[in-house]
Amino acid sequence: SIQREQWLNISHCTKDHLSTDLISGKLPVDFLYSFTCLVCAHLLSDPLQLPCGHLFCRSCIQKYTCVVGSHCPACKLPCDPSALISPDKAFLSALYSLPLLCPREGCGEQVRLESFHKHIKDHDLRVTDKEIQLSEINNNLLASKGG
Amino acid sequence: SIQREQWLNISHCTKDHLSTDLISGKLPVDFLYSFTCLVCAHLLSDPLQLPCGHLFCRSCIQKYTCVVGSHCPACKLPCDPSALISPDKAFLSALYSLPLLCPREGCGEQVRLESFHKHIKDHDLRVTDKEIQLSEINNNLLASKGG
Ligand SMILES: [Zn+2]
Ligand SMILES: [Zn+2]
Ligand SMILES: [Zn+2]
Ligand SMILES: [Zn+2]
Ligand SMILES: [Zn+2]
Ligand SMILES: [Zn+2]
Ligand SMILES: [Zn+2]
Ligand SMILES: [Zn+2]
Repeated sequence: SIQREQWLNISHCTKDHLSTDLISGKLPVDFLYSFTCLVCAHLLSDPLQLPCGHLFCRSCIQKYTCVVGSHCPACKLPCDPSALISPDKAFLSALYSLPLLCPREGCGEQVRLESFHKHIKDHDLRVTDKEIQLSEINNNLLASKGG
Repeated sequence: SIQREQWLNISHCTKDHLSTDLISGKLPVDFLYSFTCLVCAHLLSDPLQLPCGHLFCRSCIQKYTCVVGSHCPACKLPCDPSALISPDKAFLSALYSLPLLCPREGCGEQVRLESFHKHIKDHDLRVTDKEIQLSEINNNLLASKGG
Protein backbone atom coordinates (compact mmCIF):
# COMPACT_ATOMS: atom_id res chain seq x y z
CA SER A 1 0.00 0.00 0.00
CA ILE A 2 0.99 3.62 -0.43
CA GLN A 3 0.88 4.12 3.36
CA ARG A 4 3.28 1.23 3.97
CA GLU A 5 5.71 2.60 1.36
CA GLN A 6 5.62 5.99 3.09
CA TRP A 7 6.35 4.32 6.42
CA LEU A 8 9.23 2.31 4.92
CA ASN A 9 10.73 5.64 3.90
CA ILE A 10 10.54 6.60 7.56
CA SER A 11 11.87 3.35 8.99
CA HIS A 12 14.61 2.54 6.40
CA CYS A 13 14.82 -1.00 7.73
CA THR A 14 14.76 -3.27 4.68
CA LYS A 15 18.47 -4.09 5.06
CA ASP A 16 18.24 -4.77 8.82
CA HIS A 17 14.92 -6.60 9.24
CA LEU A 18 13.81 -10.03 8.02
CA SER A 19 11.07 -10.68 5.47
CA THR A 20 8.11 -12.90 6.41
CA ASP A 21 8.92 -14.83 3.19
CA LEU A 22 11.72 -16.53 5.15
CA ILE A 23 9.13 -18.39 7.25
CA SER A 24 9.26 -22.11 6.54
CA GLY A 25 5.99 -24.00 6.20
CA LYS A 26 2.43 -22.75 5.86
CA LEU A 27 1.66 -21.06 9.18
CA PRO A 28 -1.91 -19.92 9.93
CA VAL A 29 -2.30 -16.43 8.40
CA ASP A 30 -3.39 -14.67 11.61
CA PHE A 31 -0.56 -16.31 13.57
CA LEU A 32 1.98 -15.11 10.99
CA TYR A 33 0.41 -11.63 11.00
CA SER A 34 0.83 -11.40 14.79
CA PHE A 35 4.64 -11.53 14.32
CA THR A 36 4.85 -8.72 11.74
CA CYS A 37 5.59 -5.10 12.53
CA LEU A 38 2.53 -2.93 11.83
CA VAL A 39 4.80 -0.17 10.50
CA CYS A 40 7.25 -2.02 8.22
CA ALA A 41 5.53 -5.44 7.77
CA HIS A 42 8.85 -7.24 8.39
CA LEU A 43 9.22 -9.89 11.10
CA LEU A 44 9.27 -8.00 14.40
CA SER A 45 12.78 -6.94 15.37
CA ASP A 46 13.30 -6.14 19.07
CA PRO A 47 9.50 -5.70 19.52
CA LEU A 48 7.79 -3.20 21.79
CA GLN A 49 4.09 -3.17 22.76
CA LEU A 50 1.80 -0.15 23.17
CA PRO A 51 -0.93 -0.12 25.87
CA CYS A 52 -3.50 -0.87 23.11
CA GLY A 53 -1.75 -4.23 22.59
CA HIS A 54 -0.23 -3.49 19.14
CA LEU A 55 3.37 -4.41 18.35
CA PHE A 56 6.21 -2.74 16.45
CA CYS A 57 9.96 -3.02 15.96
CA ARG A 58 11.69 -0.78 18.49
CA SER A 59 13.30 1.32 15.74
CA CYS A 60 10.04 1.57 13.73
CA ILE A 61 7.82 2.86 16.57
CA GLN A 62 10.52 5.26 17.74
CA LYS A 63 10.91 6.76 14.25
CA TYR A 64 7.14 6.75 13.67
CA THR A 65 6.24 8.66 16.85
CA CYS A 66 9.07 11.09 16.16
CA VAL A 67 8.08 11.80 12.51
CA VAL A 68 4.30 11.17 12.34
CA GLY A 69 3.07 11.72 15.91
CA SER A 70 2.41 10.17 19.32
CA HIS A 71 -0.33 7.70 18.42
CA CYS A 72 -0.54 4.01 17.59
CA PRO A 73 0.05 3.50 13.82
CA ALA A 74 -2.55 0.68 13.83
CA CYS A 75 -5.49 1.95 15.92
CA LYS A 76 -4.57 5.66 16.20
CA LEU A 77 -4.99 5.73 20.00
CA PRO A 78 -2.79 8.48 21.50
CA CYS A 79 0.30 7.03 23.14
CA ASP A 80 3.14 8.23 25.28
CA PRO A 81 6.45 6.70 24.04
CA SER A 82 7.24 6.04 27.72
CA ALA A 83 4.26 3.64 27.80
CA LEU A 84 6.03 1.18 25.47
CA ILE A 85 6.63 -2.15 27.20
CA SER A 86 8.34 -5.42 26.36
CA PRO A 87 5.78 -8.02 25.20
CA ASP A 88 4.83 -11.00 27.40
CA LYS A 89 7.39 -13.82 27.45
CA ALA A 90 4.82 -16.28 26.03
CA PHE A 91 4.77 -14.09 22.92
CA LEU A 92 8.55 -13.63 22.73
CA SER A 93 9.15 -17.34 23.06
CA ALA A 94 6.74 -18.03 20.15
CA LEU A 95 8.46 -15.33 18.06
CA TYR A 96 11.99 -16.62 18.68
CA SER A 97 10.85 -20.21 17.90
CA LEU A 98 9.51 -19.34 14.43
CA PRO A 99 10.96 -21.70 11.81
CA LEU A 100 12.84 -19.85 9.02
CA LEU A 101 14.32 -21.37 5.88
CA CYS A 102 17.95 -20.37 5.30
CA PRO A 103 18.01 -18.45 1.97
CA ARG A 104 21.69 -19.16 1.19
CA GLU A 105 22.11 -21.14 -2.04
CA GLY A 106 22.53 -24.85 -1.42
CA CYS A 107 21.76 -24.66 2.30
CA GLY A 108 17.97 -25.05 2.73
CA GLU A 109 18.34 -25.64 6.47
CA GLN A 110 15.42 -24.83 8.80
CA VAL A 111 16.62 -22.46 11.52
CA ARG A 112 14.75 -20.94 14.48
CA LEU A 113 14.49 -17.13 14.38
CA GLU A 114 16.62 -16.88 17.53
CA SER A 115 19.56 -18.64 15.79
CA PHE A 116 19.10 -17.10 12.34
CA HIS A 117 21.69 -14.31 12.55
CA LYS A 118 24.31 -16.69 13.98
CA HIS A 119 23.55 -19.21 11.24
CA ILE A 120 24.04 -16.59 8.48
CA LYS A 121 27.22 -15.33 10.17
CA ASP A 122 28.56 -18.90 10.16
CA HIS A 123 27.96 -19.06 6.38
CA ASP A 124 29.94 -15.82 5.96
CA LEU A 125 32.78 -17.14 8.14
CA ARG A 126 32.93 -20.33 6.07
CA VAL A 127 33.16 -18.18 2.91
CA THR A 128 36.01 -16.22 4.49
CA ASP A 129 37.73 -19.52 5.44
CA LYS A 130 37.49 -20.66 1.81
CA GLU A 131 38.93 -17.36 0.59
CA ILE A 132 41.84 -17.70 3.02
CA GLN A 133 42.42 -21.32 1.94
CA LEU A 134 42.31 -20.31 -1.73
CA SER A 135 44.77 -17.45 -1.24
CA GLU A 136 47.08 -19.83 0.72
CA ILE A 137 46.92 -22.33 -2.15
CA ASN A 138 47.73 -19.53 -4.60
CA ASN A 139 50.63 -18.36 -2.42
CA ASN A 140 51.95 -21.91 -2.21
CA LEU A 141 51.66 -22.31 -5.99
CA LEU A 142 53.48 -19.01 -6.54
CA ALA A 143 56.11 -20.02 -3.98
CA SER A 144 56.64 -23.46 -5.59
CA LYS A 145 56.86 -21.85 -9.04
CA GLY A 146 59.21 -19.25 -7.77
CA GLY A 147 61.35 -21.83 -5.86
CA SER B 1 -22.10 -9.64 17.07
CA ILE B 2 -25.36 -11.13 15.79
CA GLN B 3 -23.41 -13.39 13.40
CA ARG B 4 -21.29 -14.81 16.23
CA GLU B 5 -24.40 -15.53 18.32
CA GLN B 6 -25.93 -17.37 15.37
CA TRP B 7 -22.76 -19.42 14.98
CA LEU B 8 -22.69 -20.21 18.72
CA ASN B 9 -26.19 -21.65 18.24
CA ILE B 10 -24.65 -23.89 15.60
CA SER B 11 -21.54 -24.88 17.53
CA HIS B 12 -23.05 -25.26 21.07
CA CYS B 13 -19.56 -25.24 22.54
CA THR B 14 -19.66 -22.81 25.48
CA LYS B 15 -19.52 -25.66 28.02
CA ASP B 16 -16.66 -27.48 26.26
CA HIS B 17 -14.36 -24.68 25.07
CA LEU B 18 -12.25 -22.21 27.05
CA SER B 19 -12.79 -18.44 27.11
CA THR B 20 -9.92 -16.13 26.10
CA ASP B 21 -10.57 -14.36 29.44
CA LEU B 22 -8.62 -17.18 31.09
CA ILE B 23 -5.39 -15.92 29.48
CA SER B 24 -3.00 -14.61 32.11
CA GLY B 25 -1.10 -11.40 31.37
CA LYS B 26 -1.59 -8.81 28.66
CA LEU B 27 -0.72 -10.60 25.44
CA PRO B 28 -0.44 -8.61 22.18
CA VAL B 29 -3.96 -8.36 20.72
CA ASP B 30 -3.14 -9.86 17.31
CA PHE B 31 -1.24 -12.74 18.95
CA LEU B 32 -4.23 -13.50 21.19
CA TYR B 33 -6.58 -13.23 18.19
CA SER B 34 -4.53 -15.82 16.29
CA PHE B 35 -5.47 -18.43 18.94
CA THR B 36 -9.23 -17.85 18.81
CA CYS B 37 -11.68 -19.85 16.72
CA LEU B 38 -13.16 -17.69 13.96
CA VAL B 39 -16.54 -19.40 14.45
CA CYS B 40 -17.00 -19.45 18.24
CA ALA B 41 -14.31 -16.95 19.44
CA HIS B 42 -13.19 -19.37 22.19
CA LEU B 43 -9.59 -20.52 22.52
CA LEU B 44 -9.03 -22.99 19.68
CA SER B 45 -9.93 -26.52 20.67
CA ASP B 46 -8.38 -29.29 18.54
CA PRO B 47 -7.70 -26.77 15.73
CA LEU B 48 -7.89 -27.45 12.02
CA GLN B 49 -6.61 -25.20 9.22
CA LEU B 50 -8.22 -24.49 5.84
CA PRO B 51 -6.07 -23.97 2.70
CA CYS B 52 -6.68 -20.19 3.04
CA GLY B 53 -4.75 -20.32 6.36
CA HIS B 54 -7.73 -19.69 8.69
CA LEU B 55 -8.21 -21.74 11.85
CA PHE B 56 -11.20 -23.27 13.64
CA CYS B 57 -12.02 -25.77 16.35
CA ARG B 58 -12.54 -29.18 14.77
CA SER B 59 -16.16 -29.37 15.99
CA CYS B 60 -16.93 -25.77 14.91
CA ILE B 61 -15.75 -26.06 11.31
CA GLN B 62 -17.41 -29.47 10.93
CA LYS B 63 -20.77 -28.14 12.15
CA TYR B 64 -20.36 -24.89 10.18
CA THR B 65 -19.70 -26.57 6.81
CA CYS B 66 -22.55 -28.99 7.49
CA VAL B 67 -25.13 -26.31 8.42
CA VAL B 68 -24.01 -23.14 6.57
CA GLY B 69 -22.01 -24.42 3.60
CA SER B 70 -18.62 -25.48 2.26
CA HIS B 71 -16.74 -22.19 2.50
CA CYS B 72 -14.36 -20.55 4.97
CA PRO B 73 -16.40 -18.67 7.64
CA ALA B 74 -13.72 -15.93 7.69
CA CYS B 75 -12.84 -15.24 4.04
CA LYS B 76 -15.71 -17.12 2.30
CA LEU B 77 -13.35 -19.01 -0.04
CA PRO B 78 -14.98 -22.29 -1.10
CA CYS B 79 -13.46 -25.22 0.76
CA ASP B 80 -13.62 -28.97 0.66
CA PRO B 81 -13.86 -30.38 4.21
CA SER B 82 -11.25 -32.97 3.12
CA ALA B 83 -8.79 -30.07 2.66
CA LEU B 84 -8.66 -29.43 6.43
CA ILE B 85 -5.15 -30.00 7.79
CA SER B 86 -3.51 -29.94 11.20
CA PRO B 87 -1.72 -26.59 11.79
CA ASP B 88 2.10 -26.35 11.74
CA LYS B 89 3.79 -27.58 14.92
CA ALA B 90 5.32 -24.12 15.56
CA PHE B 91 1.75 -22.86 15.91
CA LEU B 92 0.52 -25.77 18.05
CA SER B 93 3.47 -25.42 20.41
CA ALA B 94 2.69 -21.71 20.90
CA LEU B 95 -1.01 -22.52 21.47
CA TYR B 96 -0.32 -25.24 24.06
CA SER B 97 2.16 -22.96 25.87
CA LEU B 98 -0.36 -20.14 26.40
CA PRO B 99 -0.43 -19.10 30.08
CA LEU B 100 -3.92 -19.41 31.63
CA LEU B 101 -4.98 -18.32 35.10
CA CYS B 102 -6.81 -21.02 37.05
CA PRO B 103 -10.31 -19.65 37.76
CA ARG B 104 -10.97 -21.82 40.86
CA GLU B 105 -11.51 -19.73 43.99
CA GLY B 106 -8.37 -19.41 46.09
CA CYS B 107 -6.08 -21.04 43.49
CA GLY B 108 -4.79 -18.28 41.17
CA GLU B 109 -2.12 -20.58 39.74
CA GLN B 110 -0.74 -19.93 36.24
CA VAL B 111 -1.14 -23.05 34.12
CA ARG B 112 -0.13 -23.75 30.51
CA LEU B 113 -3.05 -24.52 28.19
CA GLU B 114 -1.74 -28.06 27.65
CA SER B 115 -2.02 -28.81 31.42
CA PHE B 116 -5.22 -26.87 32.08
CA HIS B 117 -7.75 -29.73 31.94
CA LYS B 118 -5.56 -31.95 34.15
CA HIS B 119 -5.15 -29.06 36.64
CA ILE B 120 -8.92 -28.55 36.88
CA LYS B 121 -9.48 -32.32 37.18
CA ASP B 122 -7.02 -32.39 40.09
CA HIS B 123 -9.08 -29.68 41.84
CA ASP B 124 -12.21 -31.83 41.39
CA LEU B 125 -10.42 -34.94 42.69
CA ARG B 126 -9.26 -33.01 45.77
CA VAL B 127 -12.88 -31.97 46.38
CA THR B 128 -13.96 -35.61 46.07
CA ASP B 129 -11.17 -36.62 48.50
CA LYS B 130 -12.48 -34.07 51.03
CA GLU B 131 -16.02 -35.38 50.65
CA ILE B 132 -14.80 -38.95 51.25
CA GLN B 133 -12.77 -37.84 54.28
CA LEU B 134 -15.79 -35.95 55.69
CA SER B 135 -18.10 -38.92 55.23
CA GLU B 136 -15.50 -41.19 56.89
CA ILE B 137 -15.26 -38.81 59.86
CA ASN B 138 -19.05 -38.79 60.09
CA ASN B 139 -19.16 -42.60 59.95
CA ASN B 140 -16.52 -42.83 62.70
CA LEU B 141 -18.45 -40.37 64.85
CA LEU B 142 -21.64 -42.35 64.37
CA ALA B 143 -19.78 -45.61 65.10
CA SER B 144 -18.20 -44.21 68.28
CA LYS B 145 -21.56 -42.84 69.42
CA GLY B 146 -23.27 -46.12 68.59
CA GLY B 147 -20.55 -48.20 70.34
ZN1 LIG C 1 11.40 -3.38 9.14
ZN1 LIG D 1 9.19 -2.56 11.87
ZN1 LIG E 1 -2.96 0.33 18.71
ZN1 LIG F 1 22.10 -21.83 5.86
ZN1 LIG G 1 -16.18 -22.80 21.10
ZN1 LIG H 1 -14.71 -22.92 17.81
ZN1 LIG I 1 -10.37 -18.35 5.05
ZN1 LIG J 1 -6.15 -24.15 40.16
